[in-house]
Amino acid sequence: MAPDAGNAAGTVAEGSAALGPWIDGCLARFERAARQALPPVTREPSRLHDAMRYAVLDGGKRVRPLLVYAAGEVGSVSAAALDAMALAVEYVHAYSLVHDDMPCMDDDVLRRGKPTVHVAYDEATAMLAGDALQAEAFRVLAAAPLPAPACVALIHELAVAISTSGMCGGQAIDLAAVGHKLDLAQLERMHRMTTGALLRASIRMPAIAAGFAGAAGGMASALDGYADAIGLAFQVVDDILDVEATSDELGKTAGKDARQNKPTYVSAIGLEAARSWAEDLRRQAHASLDGIAGVAGIAGAATARLHQLADMIVLRRS
Amino acid sequence: MAPDAGNAAGTVAEGSAALGPWIDGCLARFERAARQALPPVTREPSRLHDAMRYAVLDGGKRVRPLLVYAAGEVGSVSAAALDAMALAVEYVHAYSLVHDDMPCMDDDVLRRGKPTVHVAYDEATAMLAGDALQAEAFRVLAAAPLPAPACVALIHELAVAISTSGMCGGQAIDLAAVGHKLDLAQLERMHRMTTGALLRASIRMPAIAAGFAGAAGGMASALDGYADAIGLAFQVVDDILDVEATSDELGKTAGKDARQNKPTYVSAIGLEAARSWAEDLRRQAHASLDGIAGVAGIAGAATARLHQLADMIVLRRS
Repeated sequence: MAPDAGNAAGTVAEGSAALGPWIDGCLARFERAARQALPPVTREPSRLHDAMRYAVLDGGKRVRPLLVYAAGEVGSVSAAALDAMALAVEYVHAYSLVHDDMPCMDDDVLRRGKPTVHVAYDEATAMLAGDALQAEAFRVLAAAPLPAPACVALIHELAVAISTSGMCGGQAIDLAAVGHKLDLAQLERMHRMTTGALLRASIRMPAIAAGFAGAAGGMASALDGYADAIGLAFQVVDDILDVEATSDELGKTAGKDARQNKPTYVSAIGLEAARSWAEDLRRQAHASLDGIAGVAGIAGAATARLHQLADMIVLRRS
Repeated sequence: MAPDAGNAAGTVAEGSAALGPWIDGCLARFERAARQALPPVTREPSRLHDAMRYAVLDGGKRVRPLLVYAAGEVGSVSAAALDAMALAVEYVHAYSLVHDDMPCMDDDVLRRGKPTVHVAYDEATAMLAGDALQAEAFRVLAAAPLPAPACVALIHELAVAISTSGMCGGQAIDLAAVGHKLDLAQLERMHRMTTGALLRASIRMPAIAAGFAGAAGGMASALDGYADAIGLAFQVVDDILDVEATSDELGKTAGKDARQNKPTYVSAIGLEAARSWAEDLRRQAHASLDGIAGVAGIAGAATARLHQLADMIVLRRS
C-alpha cells in the first residue's frame, strides 16, 4: 500500500488515482463552501466581511483542508461535516496569518501573492477580521451536521490546538526567539506548537468524527504519528524554501527568516542536513500510515491520499 | 416580586438578601475559578500566560459573570457549569478590551486602573494574549460538565454573539462611525452588537443550559427582553459616565468619547434625555422579568438577583 518512501523523486500510492485532479476537486469544493459560509459583503459591516473574505478566499495551498478531506477517507463522515472541519481549520490558519503579518508582529506586506490584509484595508480591520474568523471557526463547528458529542470533541480539539499549548503559544515562543540561537530540540518544540498543532488537528478531527460515527478508533495513534511527522516536515521544508525560493514562487516574502534573524532548521543544522531530515520525516509519515492497515474495517486504500499528501508537502516548491 | 422600578434611588427586590454580599461571593468564586483555569506562568510561554492572567485577573466589574450567576438561579445548572460560562464570557470580554486598547484601535493606556496590556507587555504579546483568550473561552465551554447538546448550543450562542453579527461587527461599525453623526436607531444597532450581544449571551447561556437540563424553556423570551434592556442601558450609562466621571473613578480614561469624536447617546440626545432613557430601560428590564413569574416551575425569587443587577447596572457610578 505505501509508496516507495525511499524514492526521493516522489511517488504516489500504487493503485490510487492521480493526486492532481483530486486536489483540484477539493480546492473547488472548499472554495464553494467558504464562499457560501463566510458572511457576505452585502451585509453590514461590509468592509469587515470583505476583509475576511479577502483573507480566506482565492489563495493559499489549502494544506489543512486537504488534510481534512484526505483523513476523512479513513472513516464514514459526511461531506458536509468534512466541509465544516475544513472551513474551521482554514479560518484559523487565515486569522493567524492576518494577525502575524501585522506591523506589531512580522510586519509583512505580501501574502498569497497579494497585499496583506492590513495593507489592503487597515490595521484595525485586520485585527477585527482575524478575531471574527476565529469566532467563525468555532461557529461553523458548532453548526456541523454531527452528533453533539462529536461536535464538542472537535471544538475541544481545535481550541487546544490553537491556544497557548499550540499555535498561539508557539507564536509567542517564536517572537521571544528572534535573535537567539535555539538548539534542534527547542526549534522542534516551537514548530510542533506553531504549525504542527493545527496540522495535527486537521488530521485528527475527521478521525474523531469518524470514531463517534462508529468507525474504528484504533487508528488514532497511527494518524498521530503521521501528523507529527508531516507537521515537522512542513516546517523544515518551509525553512528550506525561505532560503531557496523567490518571493514570486512563494507568494510571500522570501529570505525573511535570515533577515529577521529567526532561528530555522537551515540555520540550526545547515541546508543539506535539513533536506535530508525532511526526507526522513516523509519516510516516517509513510511508515506511520502502514499501522492503519492493521485496524479492523479500514481499507488500506483509505490512506492513499494521506500518503500522497506527505509526498506533496515534502516535495513542494512553494 | 419586582422592585419599585420608578424609584430612581435604587431598590432591591423585596425579600431577597442584600446584593453586596452576593456579589462579593460571586467575585471571589469567579476569581478562584479563573486563577485555576488560566494557564499558569510556571508553564511556557510564561510571558504570554502572564499577560493573559494580567488581562483577566484582579479587576473589572465582572458584569458578565454576575449576569451568568444571576441567570443561573432561574434553573438547575451545576456550579461548575456556571463557572465555565462565567469564564468564557469574561475571557471574551477581556480579549476584546486588550485588542480594543491597542494603538491600531482605541490606543488607550489605562484599563481597570492599570496600564493596558500592550503598555505593560508589548503589542505582539497583547495581540496573542487576546487571540489565546478567545480560544480559551471556547475550550472551557467544550470542557464544561454539561450534556453535549447543551455544550454545543452554548458554544454556538457565544460564537454568534462575538462574531460579525455581534461584538466584532459592532466594533467595526464603531470604528467607521468615528467623526460621523449617527441617529439614535444607528447608535442603538451598533451598541446592541458591540456590548449588547455578549451581555445577552451571558444571560441566555445559563437559560440554554437549564433548558437542556430539564428546566422550563418558556422563560427565554422574558430573559431576552431583560437582556436587551440591560444591554442597552449598560451602554447608555457608559456614555453618561464617560462625561460625568473621572478616570480615577472609572479605572479607564474618561472623556474619551468626545475627544475621539465618537457618537454617543449623550452626543445624540443630550445628558438629561440619556439619563431618562437609562431609567426607562431599567423599568423595561424589571417588567420583562415579571414575565417569568408565569413560567411553570420557576419561583419568582429566582429572578431576584437579575432585578438587583438591573438596578446596579443603571445606578452604578463607575
